[in-house]
Amino acid sequence: AAQRLATLDPSGTVFAEFTALANKHGAVNLGQGFPALPVPKFITDAATAAVSGNGLLHQYTRSEGHIRLAKALATYYTAKLGRRALDPLSEILTCAGASEAIHCAMQAFINSGDEVIIMQPFYDCYEPSVRFAGGVPVFTSLRPPPPNDDDGRPAAEKTSRDWEFDIEEIRGKCRRGVTKMIVVNNPHNPIGKVFTRAELEQIADVAREFDLLVLADEVYETLSFAEAPFVKFATLPGMYDRTITVGSLGKMLGITGWKIGWCLAPAPLTRAIWLIHQYVPFCVATPLQEAAAVCLEHAITASPTYFADTAKQYARLRDRLHAHLAAAGMRPTLPEGGYFILADTSNVNVDKAATTKTGGGHGHDGDDDKDDERRDYAVCRELTEHALVTAIPPSAFYSAENKADLAAAGRLARFAFCKNEEMLDDAGAKLKAYF
Amino acid sequence: AAQRLATLDPSGTVFAEFTALANKHGAVNLGQGFPALPVPKFITDAATAAVSGNGLLHQYTRSEGHIRLAKALATYYTAKLGRRALDPLSEILTCAGASEAIHCAMQAFINSGDEVIIMQPFYDCYEPSVRFAGGVPVFTSLRPPPPNDDDGRPAAEKTSRDWEFDIEEIRGKCRRGVTKMIVVNNPHNPIGKVFTRAELEQIADVAREFDLLVLADEVYETLSFAEAPFVKFATLPGMYDRTITVGSLGKMLGITGWKIGWCLAPAPLTRAIWLIHQYVPFCVATPLQEAAAVCLEHAITASPTYFADTAKQYARLRDRLHAHLAAAGMRPTLPEGGYFILADTSNVNVDKAATTKTGGGHGHDGDDDKDDERRDYAVCRELTEHALVTAIPPSAFYSAENKADLAAAGRLARFAFCKNEEMLDDAGAKLKAYF
Ligand SMILES: CSCCC(=O)C(=O)O
Ligand SMILES: CSCCC(=O)C(=O)O
Repeated sequence: AAQRLATLDPSGTVFAEFTALANKHGAVNLGQGFPALPVPKFITDAATAAVSGNGLLHQYTRSEGHIRLAKALATYYTAKLGRRALDPLSEILTCAGASEAIHCAMQAFINSGDEVIIMQPFYDCYEPSVRFAGGVPVFTSLRPPPPNDDDGRPAAEKTSRDWEFDIEEIRGKCRRGVTKMIVVNNPHNPIGKVFTRAELEQIADVAREFDLLVLADEVYETLSFAEAPFVKFATLPGMYDRTITVGSLGKMLGITGWKIGWCLAPAPLTRAIWLIHQYVPFCVATPLQEAAAVCLEHAITASPTYFADTAKQYARLRDRLHAHLAAAGMRPTLPEGGYFILADTSNVNVDKAATTKTGGGHGHDGDDDKDDERRDYAVCRELTEHALVTAIPPSAFYSAENKADLAAAGRLARFAFCKNEEMLDDAGAKLKAYF
Repeated sequence: AAQRLATLDPSGTVFAEFTALANKHGAVNLGQGFPALPVPKFITDAATAAVSGNGLLHQYTRSEGHIRLAKALATYYTAKLGRRALDPLSEILTCAGASEAIHCAMQAFINSGDEVIIMQPFYDCYEPSVRFAGGVPVFTSLRPPPPNDDDGRPAAEKTSRDWEFDIEEIRGKCRRGVTKMIVVNNPHNPIGKVFTRAELEQIADVAREFDLLVLADEVYETLSFAEAPFVKFATLPGMYDRTITVGSLGKMLGITGWKIGWCLAPAPLTRAIWLIHQYVPFCVATPLQEAAAVCLEHAITASPTYFADTAKQYARLRDRLHAHLAAAGMRPTLPEGGYFILADTSNVNVDKAATTKTGGGHGHDGDDDKDDERRDYAVCRELTEHALVTAIPPSAFYSAENKADLAAAGRLARFAFCKNEEMLDDAGAKLKAYF
């Protein structure tokens, strides 16, 4: 097998592992981020229409993206970006999910030895996609607030805004000509942080200073619950030209199983990513792209409040789960965006001996000390088996390098609120009964 | 941009290029290999059923493959392999098309500097997938018969069997510990060759001798028109353990736009490929996998002659196009499998000055001499523009290294017969009128 496999966790993604564990124990699965909510009729209607004919919608479509979908996305993003009209043919590439877009972007821009700045915690696919391209991920930290009121503020008031980064740490890790890219995930998974304009401008300054590409993973862009309008990275002055914005139909419409994502970038960048993509899946499933286009057209024109209404619905689900976690004594941090809440698990008793990862930890640490930090894996297994509620251990979103960060992750668990009210209430009752 | 992009044709795949050209000129598109045939009702019914509900079929499924589809594939291949029952959970991985399976297989097994034997002509994605992994493709030749009767046999009797390889050439290019894999595409695209058991056994001997993995791209396995039963590489003595068989729902059921493929291999190999795949698309579109499972169950049980009937239908389409090409004086070679016919284009007049590729040829040749060999690009453009019939230039399936091979390709064009009778007849009439 290739050496690059040795850099991967041999037990596979944390999502596969904990969804399997949830199924095994019949636990309420608040782990993997997929909506357990009824899919609206306009979506199932569009899909039914796209697959029920017997013609060319069942055959390959344009490799860069089904034209009708590219056009719908160009319309959507032209409004968001508020600049000249985007060209659907050259500035948009549809992919087999956002993760395939990220994989191809790394293959397109990262050479052996190139460095990519990733703030941790980070959505888990960034690190391997950089390594597959021969690149070196360089980690900086988003630091959590103290779980208690040591900072003079009541735990109950903590929000995802209290997770902060130090721009000087980021700047200090950039090396001219070696650092090629920074990944900015906003709204952030797993924190739920929605970056402020001021924070993003600090990052933009660094990108300019070191001539970096910015991979703006904004798959949760329609799910920002913050009061201030969501700031797309590509709208910052001068940033469009160096930004690859990654989006996801699955997250926008709550249909993660369609596996349709995209990137949006200036034509030369889009073309570079496409040159890779044409040899990965070649193109994305035609009937689902056709249906996706119809759905976006609907959400843009026939039902223009669709995204705002959906964000309100998700904010209510967030509040509901937040209340349950607070009632269970788990000191949740209120997220401003996305699908997830991080909660404190200090009140879960786990055997010190059990605090290692399944499969013995990431292949690339090989240092037993680090596994001591992985208390959160033991906690999430304990909660699945004995509280019958599944959450994701956040250390899955950390490199093994920084022990202070890992130790902070070790006291947290990530709960998804993109689930129906019955599931959230059931999980709340089960957690309360457990403690 | 990353250096790996410099090894790619800047104009993209030949398929995208010629499908766009066909559309521009309103030509009959016998280029890209996608069926233009009505999709059977059992398929559209299965798809409609899978997408019309509002539940979890719209969300992520198991990363290794939707269980119902993995089970249907295990049943199908257990019968084909005629050995112990395959394990659907560990020996099958579903992918975003066969090309994603090939991409991930190379990432899983090929290290920087490892060599992979590819017989040319070759389906175009093999070369970049090897290079993306840092590997080095090593090309050997499948040699065409003379287009005339110089070998003492009438041109009209030539078949894809007359394309031959020299096993000693292959053996001579293998280097112990450096050569890691050989790609065997059977039935072959673009030749339509169905390898005999004796030929495959020669390759198996080399694989054993040099301890090679075998990537058996058998996407056209159900479309073998030869009299002898099709021989799956993995059924040769001792070969299962070193073979990765790649398959395609698109080719099996004539629905290339669903972008569902898979690989079948011993559990440790499957797992290695999955470790990559989970960070490329993570999983394949759930509703289409569910529908694919229903379709395969149907083809296996309710309609057990489905694949044989489909092969007969395609053999009739092949014969129809073969007759048209022969009538137009194009000396077609009768293919024993797949979607395509290679025909001789000596009777097409093309300007010497026009015999270069669009976009200036592969990025990695940079040697102007080679473009002289690319007469077939000029021919296929000429036929699209003036005969209004689109074919694919076979030199797209050759490396730039071997001039004799390229020169042989330069007199050929590849025509797809996976099209409805009207299209084939229309193309036949147009070609006749042109000459
Ligand atoms: C690709 S499975 C992961 C889904 C997700 O985004 C998450 O749970 O973080
Ligand atoms: C992925 S587009 C190519 C389709 C095909 O298999 C061919 O035309 O050779």
